[in-house]
Amino acid sequence: MKDVEEIRHIAAIDLGSNSFHMVVAKVVNQDLQLISRHKQRVRLATGLNDQKVLDQTAIQRGIECLEMFAERIQGFSPENVRITATHTLRQAKNTAEFIEQARQVIPYPVEVIPGAEEARLIYLGVAHTQPQSQSMLVIDIGGGSTELVIGHEFTPELVNSLQIGCVSYTNRFFPDGKITRKRLNQAILAAEQKLESIVRQYRKKGWDTAFGSSGTIKAVRDVLSESGAQDGSITLSRLEKLQDKLVEAGSVDNLSLKGLSEERKPVFVAGVAILFAIIKDLKIREMHFSQGALREGLLYEMEDRLKYTDIRLRTAESLAQKHQVDIDHARKVKKLAKQFLEQLAPVLELPAKNTELFDLLEWSAILHEVGLSINLQGFHRHSAYILRHTNMPGFNSEQQELLSTLVRFHRKALKLNEMPELTLYKKKHVIQIIRILRLAVVLNGQRSDDPLPELKIIINDHDKWTLNSVEQEWLENNKLLHTDLETEQQYWQSAGWTLQYA
Amino acid sequence: MKDVEEIRHIAAIDLGSNSFHMVVAKVVNQDLQLISRHKQRVRLATGLNDQKVLDQTAIQRGIECLEMFAERIQGFSPENVRITATHTLRQAKNTAEFIEQARQVIPYPVEVIPGAEEARLIYLGVAHTQPQSQSMLVIDIGGGSTELVIGHEFTPELVNSLQIGCVSYTNRFFPDGKITRKRLNQAILAAEQKLESIVRQYRKKGWDTAFGSSGTIKAVRDVLSESGAQDGSITLSRLEKLQDKLVEAGSVDNLSLKGLSEERKPVFVAGVAILFAIIKDLKIREMHFSQGALREGLLYEMEDRLKYTDIRLRTAESLAQKHQVDIDHARKVKKLAKQFLEQLAPVLELPAKNTELFDLLEWSAILHEVGLSINLQGFHRHSAYILRHTNMPGFNSEQQELLSTLVRFHRKALKLNEMPELTLYKKKHVIQIIRILRLAVVLNGQRSDDPLPELKIIINDHDKWTLNSVEQEWLENNKLLHTDLETEQQYWQSAGWTLQYA
Repeated sequence: MKDVEEIRHIAAIDLGSNSFHMVVAKVVNQDLQLISRHKQRVRLATGLNDQKVLDQTAIQRGIECLEMFAERIQGFSPENVRITATHTLRQAKNTAEFIEQARQVIPYPVEVIPGAEEARLIYLGVAHTQPQSQSMLVIDIGGGSTELVIGHEFTPELVNSLQIGCVSYTNRFFPDGKITRKRLNQAILAAEQKLESIVRQYRKKGWDTAFGSSGTIKAVRDVLSESGAQDGSITLSRLEKLQDKLVEAGSVDNLSLKGLSEERKPVFVAGVAILFAIIKDLKIREMHFSQGALREGLLYEMEDRLKYTDIRLRTAESLAQKHQVDIDHARKVKKLAKQFLEQLAPVLELPAKNTELFDLLEWSAILHEVGLSINLQGFHRHSAYILRHTNMPGFNSEQQELLSTLVRFHRKALKLNEMPELTLYKKKHVIQIIRILRLAVVLNGQRSDDPLPELKIIINDHDKWTLNSVEQEWLENNKLLHTDLETEQQYWQSAGWTLQYA
Repeated sequence: MKDVEEIRHIAAIDLGSNSFHMVVAKVVNQDLQLISRHKQRVRLATGLNDQKVLDQTAIQRGIECLEMFAERIQGFSPENVRITATHTLRQAKNTAEFIEQARQVIPYPVEVIPGAEEARLIYLGVAHTQPQSQSMLVIDIGGGSTELVIGHEFTPELVNSLQIGCVSYTNRFFPDGKITRKRLNQAILAAEQKLESIVRQYRKKGWDTAFGSSGTIKAVRDVLSESGAQDGSITLSRLEKLQDKLVEAGSVDNLSLKGLSEERKPVFVAGVAILFAIIKDLKIREMHFSQGALREGLLYEMEDRLKYTDIRLRTAESLAQKHQVDIDHARKVKKLAKQFLEQLAPVLELPAKNTELFDLLEWSAILHEVGLSINLQGFHRHSAYILRHTNMPGFNSEQQELLSTLVRFHRKALKLNEMPELTLYKKKHVIQIIRILRLAVVLNGQRSDDPLPELKIIINDHDKWTLNSVEQEWLENNKLLHTDLETEQQYWQSAGWTLQYA
């Protein structure tokens, strides 16, 4: 811990389905002071067609907003900015195109995050902005997805993201702005159908205080306050009365409620329906609005980058434990992989200060055997399947995909055509990391306690690596390892690479 | 239990990569007496080309052998015969073609079984033919795969099947029949590479007695006995001396060892290499030959069909437990599904006496939520993945595939083009079972303790089903269920089916 005063500025940007948000804060020692909030209604979700392609006008609106945000945070160094994208960019088939254009206007990576990760960050945002309560339920109704989390203090415990959103439900149930009792009920039932699978678990777990954290919930709170609910709390009976008013108005155009902005109007009715379904099915007595949201969660996690690393390390370790990984072996593989990477870092031309790949290599070493919990046969594929589909707190979608890819390719034939396209990581680097992981696994194949000789990797050429200080005598005394290395050589050769040892 | 004396004949046929075997036995009350053994060297494996296609000559050899076997067991009723196929038919792409031709000559289904299931049955075969010992290691070296099991009394505990076989290793290391020290060592190392991943676990678990149960191990035992090993046990040092003799001979043609049949000769050297690798790496002090094998395992399990059902039930339940399935809910789904199936059985035209589909439906109900252990999102696909890739004692490959298919299709859109081709089950029946499972799941969607009304399914037409006794009032009081039924109707409609309720 340094005790000199240091001022650092950090920014978090959240590319939502309805709005883009940015918050900027000042870190003074351990303290975080919010300096500014920026919000722009981009309505990205409305640009997504039935084939899940995002149209150019929507992309353009998003890029223009990012251009504006970029001005505000000019000169911020990369570790002080995080940009995350949620539902619409999770869904869109041409997200890579959006990210490519974004790269031209804002010099920080755009991370698409899985729904569960979004939920976790929202919870953190709320937990940091609310006075502590024993346990909290946090609800966030976004344009395309709704997050529901129960946690204890700063630790989210039940985390879900459902495909219910105020923009998508507006398009589905109120496309022409007409409001009827029947339509409202249909929207509520549709939301209840989605909630069905988790309701029981949430009610069983329970909570002390319920918070809502999105534009929808803020608007409902504002409208209810204006009509006399002075404590600002949202309850089932207040929402029932609000619905009567909506039906009375008959259409969005006729809607005139104190506290409701023009901007919010078009998606307000769908938002009320979704909120009603949640409050009813989870049997929430009362809900309070919280200012904290996804971006605040990002900020608080950035305040200490180490904390972020810690969360992912914890995720990796708890996943290893859940699948009963042979942790001693995994640690040996990790140690050797790390040693190789440190040796090679100067020649690998990794992006400056990027310890990301170091971390991912280590976690893939810890997790490469999770698939054994399904079956020994083809277990690298089972490991990849698990890592692709499990909720992994702290990981964005690409990091999760990369981790899955690393374990997928840690042994057996290198079917490189099965490698996914990534936007945050270069294929060149991914391949180098795969090679290091494979060598660390092969060299530890005997799972013996005998120490390995001091080995070094020499890169003769991009695709030609030599494992050095491999003595003939050692190979003769370790015939099985020798054969494994020969087999590994053949795998490399089939992939167009060369592995030598001398 | 009946106490009148009943004589029943049962037969088990095992379609191996090297030989086909049949054993016939008499069941007198609780007792099993072997009546005859039949063996024919079919060498199925040699007919498998690099593209994993089985050539017509090999198929023909197999069919001719089955024709012969069929004569011997003419008139046996279906529940008294089991035919299983192993490695080569697991591998071949045109296995369906073989099975189709087999159906013409022998009126019992051919079940392809997974490697782990093969291993389990071999263990049972040995366990029933040997005097009891506390714990046993059982090794079976086949033409295409090698099974290794450690168990306690009649319960296999560590089960593995590796792709090491005396036929495949002959083709790979001794294609021209020449025997050199170098080739022998290469074959041994290749086997050791495959063993590498399991050796540690086996050594750690340990055993009291080691048995070997295949033609390879019998031949080695015979040869060693003839050269003075009177106790008939196989040890590392005896195998080393045997290898010296093999190298001395220099070629298969020159091989002249007392106790070695002409038939066994071509694949003997590879078999010795594999056995040597196993005995060395597992540190087996001495191994004894056991007459019991796969077919005996099948027989003993058939002796009491209920036992076979029990094993699969136990598999399903332990898998449900491993993945922390909500068992109360699963049992409710199972109960309703069973009720529907019993109602419908007379009109579904299921094969007479076939309780198979009843069982599979029940187990799919128990297991449909295993995938929740990976993620809620798309969990039906995760359930299917787990059931496809996990070792499932008692299930043949198709039953496992069918179970995986049932859970895959238990909810959400019916992408019927993703349904696999099956040979033991008719698509028509599978679809009926899927419909029943889906309805049982939808109707239990609320996970409530309120009893459902007495519902009946009426089949108006193959693809048009009506859920009967659904009262309007009940629907109105259960709006969410009603909406779920409407959504289900839409899924049926998209698949070209009709679901009504009245």
